[in-house]
Amino acid sequence: MKFDPKKITIKEVGPRDGLQNESVFVPTADKIAWINQMSHTGLSYLEVTSFVHPKWIPALADAVEVAAGIERVPGVTYAALVPNAKGLERALSARIDEVSVFLSASETHNVKNINKSREETFPILAETTRDALAAGKSVRGYVSTVFGCPYEGAVAIEDVIRVTDALLEMGVSEVSLGDTIGVAQPRQVQEVLEVLLKRFPADKLAMHFHDTRGMAMANVLVSLEMGMTTFDSSLGGLGGCPYAPGASGNIATDDLLYMLHGLGMETGIDGEKLQTAALFIQEKMGRPLMSHSMQACQA
Amino acid sequence: MKFDPKKITIKEVGPRDGLQNESVFVPTADKIAWINQMSHTGLSYLEVTSFVHPKWIPALADAVEVAAGIERVPGVTYAALVPNAKGLERALSARIDEVSVFLSASETHNVKNINKSREETFPILAETTRDALAAGKSVRGYVSTVFGCPYEGAVAIEDVIRVTDALLEMGVSEVSLGDTIGVAQPRQVQEVLEVLLKRFPADKLAMHFHDTRGMAMANVLVSLEMGMTTFDSSLGGLGGCPYAPGASGNIATDDLLYMLHGLGMETGIDGEKLQTAALFIQEKMGRPLMSHSMQACQA
Repeated sequence: MKFDPKKITIKEVGPRDGLQNESVFVPTADKIAWINQMSHTGLSYLEVTSFVHPKWIPALADAVEVAAGIERVPGVTYAALVPNAKGLERALSARIDEVSVFLSASETHNVKNINKSREETFPILAETTRDALAAGKSVRGYVSTVFGCPYEGAVAIEDVIRVTDALLEMGVSEVSLGDTIGVAQPRQVQEVLEVLLKRFPADKLAMHFHDTRGMAMANVLVSLEMGMTTFDSSLGGLGGCPYAPGASGNIATDDLLYMLHGLGMETGIDGEKLQTAALFIQEKMGRPLMSHSMQACQA
Repeated sequence: MKFDPKKITIKEVGPRDGLQNESVFVPTADKIAWINQMSHTGLSYLEVTSFVHPKWIPALADAVEVAAGIERVPGVTYAALVPNAKGLERALSARIDEVSVFLSASETHNVKNINKSREETFPILAETTRDALAAGKSVRGYVSTVFGCPYEGAVAIEDVIRVTDALLEMGVSEVSLGDTIGVAQPRQVQEVLEVLLKRFPADKLAMHFHDTRGMAMANVLVSLEMGMTTFDSSLGGLGGCPYAPGASGNIATDDLLYMLHGLGMETGIDGEKLQTAALFIQEKMGRPLMSHSMQACQA
């Protein structure tokens, strides 16, 4: 394997994908303080909240207050998940830099998650994307269940291509490929990327691995080898399943950083400052964070 | 990365390296029942206990009873850790098939762990190996702190070569390279193996990764690419640090199996039977096992 030093972009999704899967409500002021700390670690991208209706994600019911209340550090993009035009209005009122729209590669997961078929979802995302672009914002697209669906099992690569194509045609600047249930292993990641990279340039794609079965780090490694340079992660491994203590959510930013820096990659991120931010949110969560780095630093 | 299907050997060290790092004493009958279950999973190698003096490892004070009491399934090698000639006597009385001797690549860790310098350790291991071979047993050598020492930091590759050379000259059939404190990342693993594989054939070496910083799976992946085919692991990720709940010990056998089978490798191991054995020992430990597979299966 060749480990050429490269600039790697880590997109921190802990305040959104992490917190939305936690049963604890972190007070708004603590969320803001935490995001502000992370703004000074060298992270260039923070997904700070979600404008999905609070009925569905009570942990992020304070989306407007958080997004409007955080410090804006030059060079950092502040993004948020936005489901539709109504969510976009709230996101714009809170001065979000980048909007993330989302759907699933598999039909059943899309229906269960969004309550609409994929075909019914496309025009909603197209409208949201168009309006966001018109407001001068960039747009990111998430594709869930790229490597497997909890309801359908295997997901056809044609479905991944179809939704990725659709998102890029709408005008999103990047598509994040999600292993939503953490079933992918390195061979599958390589096979999927071999197909996708014939059709899409690497800089239009990002990898979003969940660590459910402990494969995330190996999946990042093979993705790096395939030329990928953007990875989503969550500080301290926040998230996962609130009903299964210890079950893993997103790959942990701190663990990912350990590997990337060990490989000689440039991230621009200060590991010590990041750890301070992890200790802060750990205290607010009232339980040990599950990342290996956090466990090791307290052992 | 090329994932050529290969036969991979997993050496299960949970009953020794796992349990010795747990604060709970598992009753002898439960240890025996657990090992017997694992004997029928397709695992071909089980390190069942340690004949280090019980004063140092109270969790394995019943070494003779366990080793003498377990079922012998044809095709399975039953191994145990043996520190010296006195330990060997007990191991032989308990009908162990293979003896594991051990030392550290770094001087300070060896002194702290064995209370002797490396030079003082060599003749003890040579005597143990000679006597074991004379008794018709095979011998395995462990080298600790190959990728880093908790006291000295970086470990010179020359030190790793020197102790590996010494062990092979004594007559051990395989040297297991331990990342004792789990600091290695894939680039380092590749660099170390590039040097070692010029001097030693791959089938004389095994990889023994701890998952302290979440690197173990990625390290296995790069080791596979380098041609390694033998890996030590612990069922359910047993072990780790008893004082840091959640801190990781050996790479988990069940997680490792998920990746290996996903890569198309042959292990001969039945994942479902293995999970049954994991659930059994989890109940005896009285706490959730920390492997990702075990967390996912209960989520």
